[in-house]
Amino acid sequence: MSPHFTVLSQDAGSQARLGLLTTAHGDVETPVFMPVGTVGTVKAQSQEMLEEIGARIILGNAYHLYLRPGHQLIQGVGGLHRFISWPGAILTDSGGFQIYSLSTLRKVDEDGYTFRSHLDGSSHHFTPERAVEIQCAMGSDIAMALDVCLGQPASPEETQAASDRTIRWATRARRCFDDLEFDPTRRPQLFGILQGGLDLDLRRNALEQLVEIGFDGYAIGGLGVGESKEGLYSTVEAVAPRFPADRPRYLMGVGTPLDLIRCAGYGVDMFDCVLPTRNARNGQVFTHCGPLNVKNSIHATDSGPLDEECSCKVCRRYSRAYIRHLYVTGEILSSILCTYHNLQFFLDTLKRVRQSIRLNNFTEFAKSYTEKYLSRSRSCSKEFVNGGSAGLNS
Amino acid sequence: MSPHFTVLSQDAGSQARLGLLTTAHGDVETPVFMPVGTVGTVKAQSQEMLEEIGARIILGNAYHLYLRPGHQLIQGVGGLHRFISWPGAILTDSGGFQIYSLSTLRKVDEDGYTFRSHLDGSSHHFTPERAVEIQCAMGSDIAMALDVCLGQPASPEETQAASDRTIRWATRARRCFDDLEFDPTRRPQLFGILQGGLDLDLRRNALEQLVEIGFDGYAIGGLGVGESKEGLYSTVEAVAPRFPADRPRYLMGVGTPLDLIRCAGYGVDMFDCVLPTRNARNGQVFTHCGPLNVKNSIHATDSGPLDEECSCKVCRRYSRAYIRHLYVTGEILSSILCTYHNLQFFLDTLKRVRQSIRLNNFTEFAKSYTEKYLSRSRSCSKEFVNGGSAGLNS
Repeated sequence: MSPHFTVLSQDAGSQARLGLLTTAHGDVETPVFMPVGTVGTVKAQSQEMLEEIGARIILGNAYHLYLRPGHQLIQGVGGLHRFISWPGAILTDSGGFQIYSLSTLRKVDEDGYTFRSHLDGSSHHFTPERAVEIQCAMGSDIAMALDVCLGQPASPEETQAASDRTIRWATRARRCFDDLEFDPTRRPQLFGILQGGLDLDLRRNALEQLVEIGFDGYAIGGLGVGESKEGLYSTVEAVAPRFPADRPRYLMGVGTPLDLIRCAGYGVDMFDCVLPTRNARNGQVFTHCGPLNVKNSIHATDSGPLDEECSCKVCRRYSRAYIRHLYVTGEILSSILCTYHNLQFFLDTLKRVRQSIRLNNFTEFAKSYTEKYLSRSRSCSKEFVNGGSAGLNS
Repeated sequence: MSPHFTVLSQDAGSQARLGLLTTAHGDVETPVFMPVGTVGTVKAQSQEMLEEIGARIILGNAYHLYLRPGHQLIQGVGGLHRFISWPGAILTDSGGFQIYSLSTLRKVDEDGYTFRSHLDGSSHHFTPERAVEIQCAMGSDIAMALDVCLGQPASPEETQAASDRTIRWATRARRCFDDLEFDPTRRPQLFGILQGGLDLDLRRNALEQLVEIGFDGYAIGGLGVGESKEGLYSTVEAVAPRFPADRPRYLMGVGTPLDLIRCAGYGVDMFDCVLPTRNARNGQVFTHCGPLNVKNSIHATDSGPLDEECSCKVCRRYSRAYIRHLYVTGEILSSILCTYHNLQFFLDTLKRVRQSIRLNNFTEFAKSYTEKYLSRSRSCSKEFVNGGSAGLNS
């Protein structure tokens, strides 16, 4: 049994489960969506807003924070929570995905990554040990082991090599973490990351090795990077239930509201994605009837809210006509309001997922949610339905 | 006696007075600072934030709103208050200053302005009548007569001509306004604008003609456009007390906290300026000891608030170190937090001005506020102290 995670309820008709994740900065009910706060801020939101919408855990990114303002500065001012004035939980990504995204600026060998900063071109070296040390120095509640990311399509050899190295790095991360000393009340958790592309045999094999090493939680990486929806779903379906039932399962960088529901049904407990925040800044908002683009001229004189079924502060006060005007004129308030609504929508979706598991009717909930969600998007948001969440990590 | 304005208290040692401005959308205590919401949003703030900091009246701009989204659209969705979901008062500037700022895009003759939109190059014609109609169509609480703006330095002939034309336009605006029909509970006010540059004789002469026409309030225009501090202060000092005591006096587009205090002492009741909002987005915040630049590396590890004596939500929660980090990384939250604090600072300054008038010690208050404010700015914000508020209208 994990001291950090308890399964409170298991859905009868699916792999979905209701859980409680315990961190040094509060408890978090799962399945949960974690807003992405790459450099220590969820873009266009204040911490008060995140509290208002009920966020209990947010993400930070070790790569970005290491470069600016630096993990030592953060440690010096009392840790990441104090630095950003966020009393809730923080999970930090190791930075593997971000360094992978630097394509021309990095080199990877058995020891780790060597890369040039995207900011000033300075040279840096990241190893599995260093990634753990940086995250722990910042006071992260959940640190991620450094992994070797790979885009799709990739050759079987590349995929195998990346997966194997990720396992070896996981061993090193585990060992480094175990050698660190922590204040017992602030002891972080360490999650391992599974790679392996769309190769299910490779994934299952790697999963066994990862579990053998032993982590507080397990993440599925290497998805949401250009694969098909079928590839995404079949991989999660095949892999998620094989993780130890008493550990949280985290699907990294995925996805749309329908992806979240589908994958919660496969037993995923934690999600993150830049979709609600990034798309908000591009004028796309999520509604119960699917996504809509606020810039569309159809909204120019629409006095209704972004989403008629939403009771968030934005939908209670502001009209589509006004938000469209703000977007068209390039005003910051457009990003603030759309982000607030989108995050509320994602968090509310997960709240309903949890409630349906509690009531043992997740499958019916998922079906009716999906039908309603698709009712509008077929007609007016084609690019979104086709696009999915590929490449949306940040 | 004006039905819209009451002087509640007159300071004994200066021209400063405490007043109550009554509008169709609530009462406003004066002297008041009005946040600038050019296109229907005070940049980087939500209406909830404006309510939190105690704003009771904000500005909109007829020129900008006429171009986007259009006054007819705003009228069609129920007026500007409903469109932007703001229950408080709104004063709309006529757009004269904005059209004046278009230098190469406009032409002015006796009938009005002909100009090309800064957005799409389309051609438009603004007359004193049209400016009134547009503002009233939007449901403004206080409409401004269209004026002929002039930068400094200007020749005596140019200054005289602009002032004379402004008076003739004021007559036309008044006549047009009087011909409009209003719901008696929503009847707006019309303010006249005084031009005349730094020529005190011209100003006094024009003032008499403006008062002769008769307005609900009187604005001093043509300042904050490049003149010296001495020019600004001596003009306001000479002009403000000559307006009818029972009408509000509005100094347009000015200025720094010290400008506001100085000019409140000359009997000015209303102020607006983009200084607190624009400078916030550029990383400059106002404090009781003067302005500071958050980007300065001295703040990188400073766990203190922006202003130790400020009790606003930003200063209660966030550190300089964090806000500097947000500014350096170009994050939207930097603009949100700095704008919130700056507006709170300006509104709080005016609240203290009002309190000092109520207690009949305005002069002592102004002296101690000014001394404290200058204590830091001499050393670390030279560009600000020298720069003043010139050209800060928007």
